[in-house]
Amino acid sequence: MSEELKATPEQEKEIDRQVEALQRGIVEIVPEEAFREKIKKAVVTDQPLKIKLGMDPSAPDVHVGHTVVLHKLRQFQEFGHEIQMLIGDFTGKIGDPSGKSETRKPLSTEEVEANARTYVEQYGKVLDMDKATLYYNSEWLSELTFEDVIKLAGNLTVARMLEREDFHNRYTSNKPISVHEFFYPLMQGYDSIAMDSDIEVGGTDQTFNLMMGRQLQEAYGKEKQVALTLPLIEGLDGVRKMSKSLNNYIGVDEDPNEIFGKSMSIPDELMIKYYKLATDVPLTEINKLEKDIADGSVHPRDAKQALGRKFVSMYHGEEAADEAQRYFQTVFQKRALPEDIPEVEWKGEATASIIDLLVELGMQPSKGEARKMIKNGGVKINEEKVSDIKTEVTIEDGMIVQVGKRKFTKLSV
Amino acid sequence: MSEELKATPEQEKEIDRQVEALQRGIVEIVPEEAFREKIKKAVVTDQPLKIKLGMDPSAPDVHVGHTVVLHKLRQFQEFGHEIQMLIGDFTGKIGDPSGKSETRKPLSTEEVEANARTYVEQYGKVLDMDKATLYYNSEWLSELTFEDVIKLAGNLTVARMLEREDFHNRYTSNKPISVHEFFYPLMQGYDSIAMDSDIEVGGTDQTFNLMMGRQLQEAYGKEKQVALTLPLIEGLDGVRKMSKSLNNYIGVDEDPNEIFGKSMSIPDELMIKYYKLATDVPLTEINKLEKDIADGSVHPRDAKQALGRKFVSMYHGEEAADEAQRYFQTVFQKRALPEDIPEVEWKGEATASIIDLLVELGMQPSKGEARKMIKNGGVKINEEKVSDIKTEVTIEDGMIVQVGKRKFTKLSV
Repeated sequence: MSEELKATPEQEKEIDRQVEALQRGIVEIVPEEAFREKIKKAVVTDQPLKIKLGMDPSAPDVHVGHTVVLHKLRQFQEFGHEIQMLIGDFTGKIGDPSGKSETRKPLSTEEVEANARTYVEQYGKVLDMDKATLYYNSEWLSELTFEDVIKLAGNLTVARMLEREDFHNRYTSNKPISVHEFFYPLMQGYDSIAMDSDIEVGGTDQTFNLMMGRQLQEAYGKEKQVALTLPLIEGLDGVRKMSKSLNNYIGVDEDPNEIFGKSMSIPDELMIKYYKLATDVPLTEINKLEKDIADGSVHPRDAKQALGRKFVSMYHGEEAADEAQRYFQTVFQKRALPEDIPEVEWKGEATASIIDLLVELGMQPSKGEARKMIKNGGVKINEEKVSDIKTEVTIEDGMIVQVGKRKFTKLSV
Repeated sequence: MSEELKATPEQEKEIDRQVEALQRGIVEIVPEEAFREKIKKAVVTDQPLKIKLGMDPSAPDVHVGHTVVLHKLRQFQEFGHEIQMLIGDFTGKIGDPSGKSETRKPLSTEEVEANARTYVEQYGKVLDMDKATLYYNSEWLSELTFEDVIKLAGNLTVARMLEREDFHNRYTSNKPISVHEFFYPLMQGYDSIAMDSDIEVGGTDQTFNLMMGRQLQEAYGKEKQVALTLPLIEGLDGVRKMSKSLNNYIGVDEDPNEIFGKSMSIPDELMIKYYKLATDVPLTEINKLEKDIADGSVHPRDAKQALGRKFVSMYHGEEAADEAQRYFQTVFQKRALPEDIPEVEWKGEATASIIDLLVELGMQPSKGEARKMIKNGGVKINEEKVSDIKTEVTIEDGMIVQVGKRKFTKLSV
């Protein structure tokens, strides 16, 4: 980093502005001083910084948890910096050489490209993908010879590798670590060398890998990147990290009603965190909202509806947000009937047992299930609960049968 | 290994003969059963086995300790098997990528070839090099891509690597192991894949690496090699492994008189071990010799002279052995004068102090050293000890001055 750079008072102000905004919500910047130096260099030389984000080449299913990083990148974009989206296709194309993971089948070039398109589409809901550059690391990693690999590996010790949390845990609990797994952090580091990245962004679980890039860049005589880690966001259960496998997530590609509905189940105590980390609402507004909730002038339910609207509008647009909110209010909140109940023409007898009726209409898969649902109080006819499983129903035109909270059928005769 | 092979009674006899002879002096054969199967295959199909020995590409200085393995290979040759001499030039050409070892400078192709020629010459003192094939592993290792390396490394776990004794010791005592060092056993294993080796031979300190070849051959769908380890021989100090750095070795390229002299300093209790492991004397003869020494019918000194003769004759020929023995007997044993004493014409005074004489003749570096040597009883004139440092010597034509056991000068006037 050149110590020579002199910033004008005006440039100093711009540097302060960027540093202040960009370090908001960050867990750790390593090293802190170098971050300001990077921003300074960019401002004074009027050259954008290169901000790297690595991506798994398997099929993406982006959820709100992932968008924490994307919102940070969006901020960098707004300050004019360049985003490097790195698709780690080299390892994806190899699959799992130890043959232990059935889910890690080798990907074809076509699959990698299809997945990249899905990334572009889903990340595009938060980022300006026109201002991001896609990289594929197979471009340089497939060119490395054994000699190159040995030289790369010569920069690190086994003990240092085993400091990485998951390696450490597996080693000390006698779970196997395949030798080739040591290559993954090395590759991630080499990517930063190949792309001359200034900053690499990741979740707190990526700290080790981000530092690897810094260390290897130095060994290869490059300017060292700064590692910037962002918090992992808890899922809808309020406890565990948001993830698809735990089914505690809101996916950016989900149906607007689903996104809105799920948003309403965010625990109250996490709501402000979601606002801060996963939306572009200005911090001043969020702070005011927090105060208003605290002093009772805003009801948490309303703040949460506004958050749900925000998510839907980011991922599907303003109009979809309006509709999702209306749907939610109609069906769940006022507990009134929705507007678009599907109609079915009844061609059976004039009367039917309630169990037969539910099965006939396809609203329950079997008589057993229908019986259970009635006993649990989940069945209504014309908004009146039916609790006796022996009820005989006299069919009428316009009669509305309801199962659970969301299934409705209107009969016509 | 094919279970179908049927050996004739005659072939069974030949198999027994080879197995019995080849497993003589071996520390371990892993796995034992497979060894017999290999020999059987060779005998029944009349195809020689491929016996691999790996060599460091740095300048060789072969000593008796190394010849233990060579004598075993010689036996294989005598049974018609093929010896694969592998020069590990790939790593030699890379040097030490972690930059920690100053002695491990990268070698040029010319240096590697010069060292290989020295190997051929020195190994040729025991082996029939016309019946051995030289391989250079850079031929296949330099062709490997990063993907190949990952697949290779995918066959092993970090825990398994850290079982190797030197890795284990360094890891547990917090001494650094560079990640690239994990590649060396992998390469050695890959060499066995590339060369389709049937048997790999090494010292007991090589067991881990030999087993690596077996494991990787299996992973690559090849017939697995058998690992055959030979004992490490103690050096002239009788305690530590023979090695150049401990200066307890007999080098095959040393001067005949030196080899013979050093042989005479082999501890009595190790003599039979040297006979068994480092000569081609038939076992029946060695056993008889051992018995004869035990019952006193052969003096250990004579048995050791015969061993010295054997070494010199293997490394320099029969004639040199005769001369070395004669020299030894003349100078050291009978304490008589040697035949080829250098003559110096005396141009000084007719008398000289013994101290000045020794320094003048260049037989002692300084007066102080000369004084010490006289006091220690190391100086003789005409085979009479001179013990007084003040002795004045009257110079005579043909006078012989002797310092220690080996330095002689004859004066002419």
